[in-house]
Amino acid sequence: MELSGLQKTRSQYLPELPPCLQKSAVELEYGDATTVADPSDAQSVTRSFPLTYGKPLVHFLNPSSPRRDSQVKKEHPAIRVGVVFCGRQSPGGHNVICGLYDAIKSHNPKSTLIGFRGGSEGLFAQTTLEITEDIVLTYRNQGGYDMLGRTKDQIRTKEQVNAASNACQTLKLDGLVIIGGVTSNTDAAQLAETFAESKCQTKVVGVPVTLYGDLKNQFVETDVGFDTLCKVNAQLISNLCTDALSAEKYYYFIRLMGRQSSHVALECALQSGPNMVILCEEVASSKLTLFDITQRICDAVEDRAKQDKYHGVILLPEGLIESIPEVYALLQEILGLHKRGVSADNISSQLSPWASALFEFMPSFIKKELLLSPESDESAQLSQIETEKFLAHLVETEMNRRLESGTYKGKKFNSICHFFGYQARGSLPSKFDCDYAYVLGHVSYHLLVAGCNGYMATVTNLKDHVSNWRCGGAPLTAMMTVKRLHGPGASSIGKPYIHPAAVDLKGKPYEMLLRYAGNLLIDDLYRNPGPLQFEGTGSESKTISLTVEDQDYMGRIKKLQAYLDKVKMIVKPGCSPEVLKAALSSMVNIVNILSIMSSM
Amino acid sequence: MELSGLQKTRSQYLPELPPCLQKSAVELEYGDATTVADPSDAQSVTRSFPLTYGKPLVHFLNPSSPRRDSQVKKEHPAIRVGVVFCGRQSPGGHNVICGLYDAIKSHNPKSTLIGFRGGSEGLFAQTTLEITEDIVLTYRNQGGYDMLGRTKDQIRTKEQVNAASNACQTLKLDGLVIIGGVTSNTDAAQLAETFAESKCQTKVVGVPVTLYGDLKNQFVETDVGFDTLCKVNAQLISNLCTDALSAEKYYYFIRLMGRQSSHVALECALQSGPNMVILCEEVASSKLTLFDITQRICDAVEDRAKQDKYHGVILLPEGLIESIPEVYALLQEILGLHKRGVSADNISSQLSPWASALFEFMPSFIKKELLLSPESDESAQLSQIETEKFLAHLVETEMNRRLESGTYKGKKFNSICHFFGYQARGSLPSKFDCDYAYVLGHVSYHLLVAGCNGYMATVTNLKDHVSNWRCGGAPLTAMMTVKRLHGPGASSIGKPYIHPAAVDLKGKPYEMLLRYAGNLLIDDLYRNPGPLQFEGTGSESKTISLTVEDQDYMGRIKKLQAYLDKVKMIVKPGCSPEVLKAALSSMVNIVNILSIMSSM
Repeated sequence: MELSGLQKTRSQYLPELPPCLQKSAVELEYGDATTVADPSDAQSVTRSFPLTYGKPLVHFLNPSSPRRDSQVKKEHPAIRVGVVFCGRQSPGGHNVICGLYDAIKSHNPKSTLIGFRGGSEGLFAQTTLEITEDIVLTYRNQGGYDMLGRTKDQIRTKEQVNAASNACQTLKLDGLVIIGGVTSNTDAAQLAETFAESKCQTKVVGVPVTLYGDLKNQFVETDVGFDTLCKVNAQLISNLCTDALSAEKYYYFIRLMGRQSSHVALECALQSGPNMVILCEEVASSKLTLFDITQRICDAVEDRAKQDKYHGVILLPEGLIESIPEVYALLQEILGLHKRGVSADNISSQLSPWASALFEFMPSFIKKELLLSPESDESAQLSQIETEKFLAHLVETEMNRRLESGTYKGKKFNSICHFFGYQARGSLPSKFDCDYAYVLGHVSYHLLVAGCNGYMATVTNLKDHVSNWRCGGAPLTAMMTVKRLHGPGASSIGKPYIHPAAVDLKGKPYEMLLRYAGNLLIDDLYRNPGPLQFEGTGSESKTISLTVEDQDYMGRIKKLQAYLDKVKMIVKPGCSPEVLKAALSSMVNIVNILSIMSSM
Repeated sequence: MELSGLQKTRSQYLPELPPCLQKSAVELEYGDATTVADPSDAQSVTRSFPLTYGKPLVHFLNPSSPRRDSQVKKEHPAIRVGVVFCGRQSPGGHNVICGLYDAIKSHNPKSTLIGFRGGSEGLFAQTTLEITEDIVLTYRNQGGYDMLGRTKDQIRTKEQVNAASNACQTLKLDGLVIIGGVTSNTDAAQLAETFAESKCQTKVVGVPVTLYGDLKNQFVETDVGFDTLCKVNAQLISNLCTDALSAEKYYYFIRLMGRQSSHVALECALQSGPNMVILCEEVASSKLTLFDITQRICDAVEDRAKQDKYHGVILLPEGLIESIPEVYALLQEILGLHKRGVSADNISSQLSPWASALFEFMPSFIKKELLLSPESDESAQLSQIETEKFLAHLVETEMNRRLESGTYKGKKFNSICHFFGYQARGSLPSKFDCDYAYVLGHVSYHLLVAGCNGYMATVTNLKDHVSNWRCGGAPLTAMMTVKRLHGPGASSIGKPYIHPAAVDLKGKPYEMLLRYAGNLLIDDLYRNPGPLQFEGTGSESKTISLTVEDQDYMGRIKKLQAYLDKVKMIVKPGCSPEVLKAALSSMVNIVNILSIMSSM
């Protein structure tokens, strides 16, 4: 890999540290013992994690008089730390390692940082790379996971846990840092418990890095990678909005990453203001069927056609397909047949009559994609299922039907489909992700040195400037919940897991989306956050997920005036009822905008 | 539309003007009469453009003593100018209008700029929008064409030319500025000739704006939009390169915009260093068949597998499919049948036996796409044909065959396909495109005032700083060539056109690509130019197409050392012949890099 000019400039950027990490001697304070959020889960978690459950929270203390002791460099004993990337690559992942490296070396140059090449497989096989200044230099503030790579990322079976344990003992590791999302951090907790049980000296610390942004709980505000992913995607979505508005002839259906949870789709919608977004959580909570979703989009297309608008932008998370009740049931049947060893070619003939009817209704490209071998025990290959094309197909069919039956009187519906997955994931990380990841790297080191096992490195108050960030650690087990599975055959109580957090349908971001939904749908309130900036405007170290930019009052007022002008222009003596309807709808929009403005 | 923080900052950016435009009285000098590049075309062009052919070049003079006369503001008489977006939206298009507006108003606030809404259709229907300060403010340095929009963009038939002529006369336009690519500027030339003939007072000036970058000739260095498109795409391609290198399991097949010419694919390849790029011009000049191209990619996949690499990035222009001789023949047959009114459903049964054999060989999704109604008289709907999926499918089939037959011994081939079309087109324009477009807007105004009819606004020496840019105008007719069509039935001499310039296979950019091709293929010399920057590093007003960044010598030397280490590591007593082969191949790469470095 060669670095471009911008990459080189970025590689020289050194993130700021919060005050608690600027001292040579970092001070930790232990809080109360932690418990799980839902008391009814406590028993199950205690049973699974007897040695690591109930540990206290850790806070890093701010220096009482800042930098007073910075002259007296207290050297730590040399330690050996291993680090491994687990799960999907997220922008900023490299900076966790850079922060960890800088912390380790600044406290004792004889300490060693060992990277495992190729994710958990590298851990099991002990394929190592000693991380040196030279290596770190190339990857500072750079995207991807290519310093170490990754493969399959599970440390779950007895063999896997044993292999990991062997690696840590053979390499005499004092600590192991696991960089990943919900699954990897659940595995980290399990590993920590096993190590505690076997009195292995290696302490395990997890770092919240996942571009889905779904590792969120009372201790963790956001994850490394999510900010970059949303910013890059929001830019591309906005570009398509601009394009749609310029060409005025297509509907863009855009599928975004995000499985059970739709954080990415929600954030991108708030950033770029597309006409419509459908979240998995909405579909699941309202039990919307394929038919419902199709009708909802078609009604929106009709409403826009009445305003003579034949373009639009619609966002969907990739997990949408699984959140639709009847499709979920079908996918579960397919998954079950896969597990029983039935080959893809034979699955369709063994479906239940009901599932078979749904399956046969689908276009052939979707059938093929639904039958792909599953990605894990629980999920189909969502990234390979072109849900956006499927929905566009259903909408087109329905719009054609409405056109033919005469209930819809507009122009023919046209769509273009996009999947924004991989192209954002490899991006240079945003300043926020660089900073957050770098600080988390430092925090991990200090947790290990303090002997914390089964903890997650945490940084909170991220909305504020770095100098007000709060560092600490929280036991992984305190983040666990137990899913009570429903349905026949499933055991009534499952294993404790760190589960992905769903979009909170009562939370502020979703509430904001709802308030604007009507205007976004009709009025093309598109905005373009623009490409990631590293200097000047837009380069602030802020995460968009916590700081949606203030709305532009003047812009709204101008918009209102434009509406009023439009109504004035179209309402003329003898104008048709259609025109009057359009004018009325514009007036309703004006009232809506006014009421939003007055309430802010 | 609402502006984001970055958009607002951008809207306040005022591009610099070259010295020749800074004076209040711009001085023009006329050069020699122009002729077409190929003398054998002259007769045909003279015949078609008797009144506008052979006009002189126009140069804008630099002020002898700069800004001396800036105090004495010489006011121009008030004029009325119309402006229309033709062709696909290109980032920077709005800035042509902003530059034109500023030039008009600064010379006489009573002059009027009238925009036609909805492209050429708006021109015919006289759907106008008077462009005011307020409007211009919202669109300064913003992407898209949404200030005016566009529709179909042809001013060719007698009816269309008459409608345009009527509009210009009814609206009493002194000038009409047509913003577009090769087709629109050919139309502009025709309109200018018609106006000259009918002694219409409206002068016609064209502006080179096309994201394909294929309106290039002795007078025009590059087009507005190309720089932004390449930069945004190169970033996304680089993100995928990083992703490929991190996950090490997929080949990304990426289709880029670019029809007969592959400028975008070439530039993006030079910027981001993917493993392979296939240009239309290479395929056409070497007459590569589908089979050849498939074999070429498969051989590359095998070569990489020998180095234990199972990932890669391959770029294709959307026009590739048409440049393959046998597919071209098939598409021509389909086009012919469409023209004869045969419906898509019946076309396959009426193909010649040869074309039918090829058609039947194709997977069904491509069949469907090839049969879509054509975009124009000459081309299929290239943006709708998923060439990347088709090639990935052919490569997968062939790799599976090789695997089964035992000639290929590596892992299974996996691919993921992308089309980077629309998501880059709506981007905020790069600084270069903002500046270039803005200056072209000013130039257009001065050409109109000087009474130049049938000219293109030109700015040259773009590699240099804006203060050294040279402004002028060149007759559109001097850019024309006459295609001699081959094959039965086609007349031997066609009409004069401004044809898209192909990538010069003897030019420097292509030569550079060729020199690195071997290393790019095997060594993953990926680089990420990063997202568009507007301040700091990477924000220089330079177009990438003319200033590929200098290669990083130290980076290369480090790379070489890494190769040497690798060879040292793998070559051990008793190692297999395969390992020795891999080592040899690494050594060959080292020699190649060394020889490139020593020649630079």
